[in-house]
Amino acid sequence: MSRASARSPIGVFDSGVGGLTVVRALMERLPFEDIIYFGDTARVPYGIKSVDTIHSFTTQITDYLLARDVKLLIIACNTMAAVAGDAVRERSGVPVLDVIDAGARAAVAMSGKGIGVIGTPTTINSNAYARHIHQLDPSVHVYSQACPLFVPLVEEGWLDHPVTRLTAQEYLKPVFVESIDTLVLGCTHYPLLKHLLRDVAGPNIRLVDSAITVAEQTAGVLTEMGMHNPQRGEPNYEYLVTDIPLRFQSIGSRFLGRELRQLSMVSLG
Amino acid sequence: MSRASARSPIGVFDSGVGGLTVVRALMERLPFEDIIYFGDTARVPYGIKSVDTIHSFTTQITDYLLARDVKLLIIACNTMAAVAGDAVRERSGVPVLDVIDAGARAAVAMSGKGIGVIGTPTTINSNAYARHIHQLDPSVHVYSQACPLFVPLVEEGWLDHPVTRLTAQEYLKPVFVESIDTLVLGCTHYPLLKHLLRDVAGPNIRLVDSAITVAEQTAGVLTEMGMHNPQRGEPNYEYLVTDIPLRFQSIGSRFLGRELRQLSMVSLG
Repeated sequence: MSRASARSPIGVFDSGVGGLTVVRALMERLPFEDIIYFGDTARVPYGIKSVDTIHSFTTQITDYLLARDVKLLIIACNTMAAVAGDAVRERSGVPVLDVIDAGARAAVAMSGKGIGVIGTPTTINSNAYARHIHQLDPSVHVYSQACPLFVPLVEEGWLDHPVTRLTAQEYLKPVFVESIDTLVLGCTHYPLLKHLLRDVAGPNIRLVDSAITVAEQTAGVLTEMGMHNPQRGEPNYEYLVTDIPLRFQSIGSRFLGRELRQLSMVSLG
Repeated sequence: MSRASARSPIGVFDSGVGGLTVVRALMERLPFEDIIYFGDTARVPYGIKSVDTIHSFTTQITDYLLARDVKLLIIACNTMAAVAGDAVRERSGVPVLDVIDAGARAAVAMSGKGIGVIGTPTTINSNAYARHIHQLDPSVHVYSQACPLFVPLVEEGWLDHPVTRLTAQEYLKPVFVESIDTLVLGCTHYPLLKHLLRDVAGPNIRLVDSAITVAEQTAGVLTEMGMHNPQRGEPNYEYLVTDIPLRFQSIGSRFLGRELRQLSMVSLG
């Protein structure tokens, strides 16, 4: 049983740094909630690993955060949500939200005819978005496209660079052939490319940023459960990583939109 | 003590798939030698990890290959050679070659005035190439440049693509301002970009492919030690990886220049 109370923190996890875009959205939407972020930076990226490996890494992180008595868990990594979302829900006594479910719901609510989904190869090949969208609305047309270079481009900081623009045009070319009106950014790195993608996609396609939609969902669940933090002071943010690689502080700050403090290293397994 | 004989295999290791360019060069230069390749695909890429983590992973792999009685070890990963080369040499009773030493020697032998080095951020920040080149010739001018997007571009298969060309022009711009006549491809992925890089660099800059130079060095060491395999049959190639990710077989075959067979998964630590 969970010993979590309304004063407990929200747990957010990702394979690396990308989930910090979700933390950022949570800070803006729920400014009084404490947050523990877990990034498995020693083993990132998950997107190129096998299903078994992703499964085992994900349950290790889940158990770690449950032991810290989080009141709600957010899987802020599309790869982990796609591959191991059910396993996380099975072992957690607290609500579990994830970026795929949040993105799929928002897209279905917004779209009139067709939804495009972009993400890492593993997320796209898992077909998790299309499956999820079709559960919500079997009639909607879904077109998915893997964009493996977007993550390294974001980490390089080329957020508005001719190379990134050319890459986006190349990846999105087949998406635009399909008649879609909504494009889901199916990777937590992609919100940093939102400006450029909006430009490349043009005015007739609406973008779904799952960092923002999962923060919105979280607010709803906390209200339903009566679990908003009653304290109105400065919230506590804690960042746990399994490795502190080169440039992590500066890349992390770019994702978070503010300075990354209280960073600690932990080891798993 | 090593129980290796002339009939023993050569051990080659890397953090992932890149070292297969070294295996390919060895197969061409030394067609009668058995080779065991070890790729730590569950924990790739090393280039973004901390020094301590790289150190510990590298010694695990070294011990694994030494237990397989290899007669010679090749560190086919610039990051591992830069960070943990000395540690590998200390624990090995067999000769240890690496891509940095091979590349540095070839560059110094070829260059008249200045050497450019390109690699991953960790390799470049370690300054290992510049240090090594200056040990061989303190008078030579060295200019180094990190190219973090080249590895994902190669793995995407965009070997001759406008995006890759634009990226190369951007990365190499500051290199060309320096007066260099030789460019070291300081990452085992880069030989697959050799054609494009030769084009971008122009006719006045010679490229050093460390996969080829380390294979040449290996031939020399085996001759010196009288350790060439006396058997003239079909050699045995074995590929060990810690994870078999999506598309590994096809990406690996592209690096190897032939079909990747006899692939097995092992677990470390």
